Amino acid sequence: MLDVTVKKTQAIPFDTRHLDRLLADAGIDALIVTSKHNIQYLFGGYRFFFFDYMDAIGVSRYLPVLIYRRGRPEDAFYIGYRMEAFENELGRFWTPTVKTTTSTSIDAAKLAVEHIRRLGKGVRRIGVEVSFMPSDAAAVLQDGLEGYEFVDAQFPLERLRARKTPTELKLLQSASDRVVDAMLDTFSSTSEGMTKNQIVDALRRREVFRDLTFEYCLITAGSNLNRAPSDQPLRTGDILSLDSGGNYQGYIGDLCRMGILGHPDAELEDLLAFIEDVQQRARKPIKPGALGGEIFTVAEEIVQKSPHKAYMEFLAHGMGLVSHEAPRLTTTGPVPYTAYDATRPLESGMVVSIETTMKHPRRGFIKLEDTVAVTDHGHEGFGDRARGWNPIGET
Amino acid sequence: MLDVTVKKTQAIPFDTRHLDRLLADAGIDALIVTSKHNIQYLFGGYRFFFFDYMDAIGVSRYLPVLIYRRGRPEDAFYIGYRMEAFENELGRFWTPTVKTTTSTSIDAAKLAVEHIRRLGKGVRRIGVEVSFMPSDAAAVLQDGLEGYEFVDAQFPLERLRARKTPTELKLLQSASDRVVDAMLDTFSSTSEGMTKNQIVDALRRREVFRDLTFEYCLITAGSNLNRAPSDQPLRTGDILSLDSGGNYQGYIGDLCRMGILGHPDAELEDLLAFIEDVQQRARKPIKPGALGGEIFTVAEEIVQKSPHKAYMEFLAHGMGLVSHEAPRLTTTGPVPYTAYDATRPLESGMVVSIETTMKHPRRGFIKLEDTVAVTDHGHEGFGDRARGWNPIGET
Repeated sequence: MLDVTVKKTQAIPFDTRHLDRLLADAGIDALIVTSKHNIQYLFGGYRFFFFDYMDAIGVSRYLPVLIYRRGRPEDAFYIGYRMEAFENELGRFWTPTVKTTTSTSIDAAKLAVEHIRRLGKGVRRIGVEVSFMPSDAAAVLQDGLEGYEFVDAQFPLERLRARKTPTELKLLQSASDRVVDAMLDTFSSTSEGMTKNQIVDALRRREVFRDLTFEYCLITAGSNLNRAPSDQPLRTGDILSLDSGGNYQGYIGDLCRMGILGHPDAELEDLLAFIEDVQQRARKPIKPGALGGEIFTVAEEIVQKSPHKAYMEFLAHGMGLVSHEAPRLTTTGPVPYTAYDATRPLESGMVVSIETTMKHPRRGFIKLEDTVAVTDHGHEGFGDRARGWNPIGET
Repeated sequence: MLDVTVKKTQAIPFDTRHLDRLLADAGIDALIVTSKHNIQYLFGGYRFFFFDYMDAIGVSRYLPVLIYRRGRPEDAFYIGYRMEAFENELGRFWTPTVKTTTSTSIDAAKLAVEHIRRLGKGVRRIGVEVSFMPSDAAAVLQDGLEGYEFVDAQFPLERLRARKTPTELKLLQSASDRVVDAMLDTFSSTSEGMTKNQIVDALRRREVFRDLTFEYCLITAGSNLNRAPSDQPLRTGDILSLDSGGNYQGYIGDLCRMGILGHPDAELEDLLAFIEDVQQRARKPIKPGALGGEIFTVAEEIVQKSPHKAYMEFLAHGMGLVSHEAPRLTTTGPVPYTAYDATRPLESGMVVSIETTMKHPRRGFIKLEDTVAVTDHGHEGFGDRARGWNPIGET
């Protein structure tokens, strides 16, 4: 097994001309890509299995590096961990040159320096992923590439991923369906006295059983607003919120559904119906050409008029490989955005997560979160089921 | 829910005097800890559930920060992601001060700068985890802390974790047992025609069913030496190697066991018996006071005399939270080590993974990997079962 291969160019799984335009707009001559999610995207779904979960090994860490020169995919170079030789042998990498010899982030950065130098004088401004470039690797790049300018490439890389292909949309739909199915199964099998930790364990198994990678579950029970898994037990009459992310072949299903151990009274029915109303109205404007901000305009109008507004939150955000990504729809909320897409038209293939949250001081945490894709003429919800009070324990 | 808490000091789950000595040896005044594994260790098993699997969110990433000043645990400070307020409310953090307001790595680094400055003039040399400090956060630290010196803290942090407590040893034993059980179950349920991908999927489910976090599985089938999961099907007569890491409450079980779809012939019996012999002899010297290098001396003597030496590899390495960590026993092998412990005495509580690998050019990949803990007077193997040719499909 050779550690360096030079081979014929394979099909490239993304639109290189689109990337080239984005890089030109950002004034970037070449990219050094180092995040797992962008490596995954640029290799059409690849994620090195050995470091799928962890990064640390020995005295250092896993650091995959893809170097892409604007306009010249034939100069692309992949620098992999030594065990990625197995993946290379299986033809996972379209880059004409692949080297799988690294053990540390420093090794990877040294090879990156050599390759960037080989690209010659046309390359001066280099895009890096500043949040996913370890400081030791960054120091090697800076020392080895004096005179080069480094800029953050987060924006063009995120834009590249903003419109999903039909294949990606199918994966997102499948991820959403599987998360909802796992939740329904979990509601059915949950019983009085089970702790939030145990309920999350049950959901995790059910997601993995459906070939999802379980990422997380935010969970509340009863009137307690704390969303971390814990030893809090579920009691008769409690409401239960499950807000879980599970990914299917790299694409995240992220939905929130409600359960109840018992029967909802009229107030609970009304509260969830109100949230459902916000959710349904918020997705209505979604179609190609609508401004991203319209989703918020509609939702906020309802929320502001409501007697519940003091303890309500509305949020919409793009999603896909990363749980919050383009389109960027707002500057408010838990994740900092530039609201870049709030005043720009939505495009088909974009995918938006819509979440309406009520932190009811007496009744507890009530929320729905949905995934809505922009289609050619409108929108489509993924995993659009089980939106009411799902009975707990009634199999 | 307040985002800053100042509370009474809780019990600290590690030996602060040990850490203080290690930091003094390294000339480090204060630590900025940012890796998930060291955060986990220093908070006694904590890992923020929302970012257990992924790091990316929005335009940035999760970056937990623990600041520890040598000799003054009462000055320790934890900087968490905004949703970690839920964990703080549950009392997960022993640090007297906790702030859970960050959304980005830059936010976290800015708060770290403020806190380091508050520590005053006694702090000048700061230990950071250079492979786990993103370059954007590093830039904020360098700008905000001019005149301070930054050094790598990997070594003292790894040393701190080198000797496992009885609780940690139980977790490692449990992890090993669960991985072996999951493998046996997988061998039983595997049948002719299943692909390596499908077999890994089956193992993953069985590990998760046993409350493990599945990390990876290296897998070979037949005479093919490629260890990546793929569409290669298992055929009658094939041998199968499963080398999987699964963690139990943060502690890794990492073992390799062999299966066969059919019955091993005399040659296969001899080959595996030889590997077993190397494995058993290599662990013999393990006890407190023995030099780490003795494991290699014994093993290499057998391997060098063997007719198989051309395609054999022997490796021993420390393990625990990270799949290769202290004790550091060799400079050779897939992970760079300084062989620091090769000439130093082993200590009780250290845990060593021992692996003997044969890449047989005709018969395929044959390997055993075991986990051996240094006890007060000798050693103990964890998950020490199923070491022969496990039958596939014979439930």
